[in-house]
Amino acid sequence: MTNLGHRSPQARARVVVIGAGFAGLAVVKGLKGAGAEIVLIDRTNHNLFQPLLYQVATAALAPSDIAVPVRAIFADRQDVTVLMGEVTTIDTQHRTVTVRDVGAVDFDYLVLATGSVYSWFGHDDWSHHAHVLKTLADALKVRGSLLAAFERAEAASDEAAVRRMLSFVIVGGGPTGVEMAGAIAELAHSTLARDFRRIRAATARIVLCEAGPHLLAGFPPTLADYARRRLDAMSVEVRTGTPVDLIDAEGVVAGGTRIPCGNILWCAGTAATPVAASLGAAQSRNGGIMVAPDCSVPDHDNVFAIGDVASMSGPDGKPLPGVGPVAKQQGASVARVIAARLAGTPAPGPFVYKDVGQLAMIGRSSAIADLGAVKLKGLPAWLLWSAVHLFFLIGTRNRLAVYLNWAWAWFTYGRGARLITVLDRPTHDMLVSGDDRSDGSGRAI
Amino acid sequence: MTNLGHRSPQARARVVVIGAGFAGLAVVKGLKGAGAEIVLIDRTNHNLFQPLLYQVATAALAPSDIAVPVRAIFADRQDVTVLMGEVTTIDTQHRTVTVRDVGAVDFDYLVLATGSVYSWFGHDDWSHHAHVLKTLADALKVRGSLLAAFERAEAASDEAAVRRMLSFVIVGGGPTGVEMAGAIAELAHSTLARDFRRIRAATARIVLCEAGPHLLAGFPPTLADYARRRLDAMSVEVRTGTPVDLIDAEGVVAGGTRIPCGNILWCAGTAATPVAASLGAAQSRNGGIMVAPDCSVPDHDNVFAIGDVASMSGPDGKPLPGVGPVAKQQGASVARVIAARLAGTPAPGPFVYKDVGQLAMIGRSSAIADLGAVKLKGLPAWLLWSAVHLFFLIGTRNRLAVYLNWAWAWFTYGRGARLITVLDRPTHDMLVSGDDRSDGSGRAI
Repeated sequence: MTNLGHRSPQARARVVVIGAGFAGLAVVKGLKGAGAEIVLIDRTNHNLFQPLLYQVATAALAPSDIAVPVRAIFADRQDVTVLMGEVTTIDTQHRTVTVRDVGAVDFDYLVLATGSVYSWFGHDDWSHHAHVLKTLADALKVRGSLLAAFERAEAASDEAAVRRMLSFVIVGGGPTGVEMAGAIAELAHSTLARDFRRIRAATARIVLCEAGPHLLAGFPPTLADYARRRLDAMSVEVRTGTPVDLIDAEGVVAGGTRIPCGNILWCAGTAATPVAASLGAAQSRNGGIMVAPDCSVPDHDNVFAIGDVASMSGPDGKPLPGVGPVAKQQGASVARVIAARLAGTPAPGPFVYKDVGQLAMIGRSSAIADLGAVKLKGLPAWLLWSAVHLFFLIGTRNRLAVYLNWAWAWFTYGRGARLITVLDRPTHDMLVSGDDRSDGSGRAI
Repeated sequence: MTNLGHRSPQARARVVVIGAGFAGLAVVKGLKGAGAEIVLIDRTNHNLFQPLLYQVATAALAPSDIAVPVRAIFADRQDVTVLMGEVTTIDTQHRTVTVRDVGAVDFDYLVLATGSVYSWFGHDDWSHHAHVLKTLADALKVRGSLLAAFERAEAASDEAAVRRMLSFVIVGGGPTGVEMAGAIAELAHSTLARDFRRIRAATARIVLCEAGPHLLAGFPPTLADYARRRLDAMSVEVRTGTPVDLIDAEGVVAGGTRIPCGNILWCAGTAATPVAASLGAAQSRNGGIMVAPDCSVPDHDNVFAIGDVASMSGPDGKPLPGVGPVAKQQGASVARVIAARLAGTPAPGPFVYKDVGQLAMIGRSSAIADLGAVKLKGLPAWLLWSAVHLFFLIGTRNRLAVYLNWAWAWFTYGRGARLITVLDRPTHDMLVSGDDRSDGSGRAI
């Protein structure tokens, strides 16, 4: 049994990595053979392939199709110890982090890859009434809540209540919002269309609210316009220039208009996980740690921040986007920096982001791809999107499973994971049940 | 929109079926074309293929591999309305059932197919410390708890605590207990063997306690003996003639000996869901409704009980076992009885169970099959077990997914669903965390 109570005498240094997302995995992979003793800490036991999380939330994929146990990834790396736990404090002076229920773990190098959280723009009470999509647990809650809306509507008597239960509002017109809106539309209008007897699932109302003037602001206008036309064709009500004023138990007020709805998906702003303050580091507007060109934290040259928790400007002066490729490339870069220090070789140059383009899915046979000179839309973009996501999934089993599920869905319009296993009702759902009960002793059917 | 507020004038009668397990589905399928208006009520939105539930609990399969939305099964049956809800009262006099949050649903015929629950033999407090395996939610809790045991052990310092966390006790040596013991042994000794650095997962202790003198009492002794030898070879401690005296926060006392353990799986007695009393019907020892030969409830000739909630004797005078084939055959039989009454044709003869044999899985390439004249063990039985379970799964997608997962696991010893998504700690797990915390301020690793 490896005794980690003391440092391994063979190891040149201990590197503690917090977070097993794209960024954290890239650091650990990059440090292979560097002679470091690595401790990788995550709150969950799995790495999650976030780009497909919306498909778990909309019942197209199973959680295990897009997540891999972190231990399994590094089973052959004897230099890597994985700990499931929550880091509660970081002490850069004594070079230790504290893990809840475990204790102190000391480090020579620390890499923060803790990612982002949803930001409510100062309206934290909205979080009681809206779902977010960050973890597998979130996705299962959303799945249960979406499917339960149709179940409850089928059993309900009051027409206004039914209309409200079958109204879905997505806040935020970025890639996640567009993907969720498209996927919910397909779920309601195709998959569930024949399953109910009392309601018509196909009449479900899906509203996508975006505060800015355009959907998909990061994409070229021609592609964003195409996405909007596709969503129109899928009967999604797209409302641009429509900031959300209020979210409460009854629904959403957006652009001055109240939309009664039973399910609200918050796909708007994100913020860095709040660690900058505890390090005394300068923060960007979204709370990201303003890092040096080598991704180190100023005044802490043995501490690095990468991925969504870090903030760095690109060559155009704008902050690098919070996307997987930035996280992975920064992770690989930091691994090279640490390896060079351990080997006593010259430090590599500053981090330079190599932009690989961007993709967004809209729905069946329709996506957009911005690859710089080449711009694709429709079926070619959809095929590229599918191929890229299969390629970047971790593990052959997951690739096969996702491929099987996609192929099945394409031919049958079915969704293989329509299970309500978690039913964590937001407040307004409970009110709905209450309303139903309060309007009498129930209804004879 | 079909209005179910009033009876459909075309329908000859309304049949309400409670429970969408093997028995309930068989009734609804058998009533196709009978001219009935059918309302199928279940607490969940899915039919669960219970025989493979232990594989979800041990991370081999995903929940969606073995569950199908009830609505999807009957999407093409316009005579079937599915309601997700919990039946709170049954009023045979006024012929209504009440569904929570929905109201009263009236019936001409009622079929109770509500299944079984776990029985604690009068020790209901044991349920706070042990897991059961009945629903998908149970299976996800067990999966999270089993996997978290290894995670916590890897992070723990005290050797006795580690040993306790890595001790698993299965209570009950029937097919489910044997399957769970075998699957946990494979999880610990093969799948997880290389994943940890501080603990050796392969040293996990798996104890199977059976009160009776033999495992698998329903099987011929030669096959039961084979199963025991296989479990021995898999390092499962099999303790027959060892009734459980006590289950508490520290573990199990069985046969007078205390076994400290962090995970207890209760695979012992089951009882019928408790509805017999509310009908004033005679009950068997396990609470089952003593039904007439046509599965009707005495004194209620329009009410039937089938599957695990019913009790009926076989030709040998012993109660029919609580297995899928009995449930399915009773469901088909009751459908014929109701259809004959609706058509005004003579009633079919009494229900006769056609015994199709029994199977039990032990582990990789090893199972037992008792087909009457033919008895199989080892690889042939394992192949038969696999083929039969794939055949009886509902839905081609699920068959493909399970086949993929099994093939993958066979070649790689891997398990594709090693995710901790639910972590509902039994009391003693929380004590363990408490113990760890209380022995100091944590440990430096």
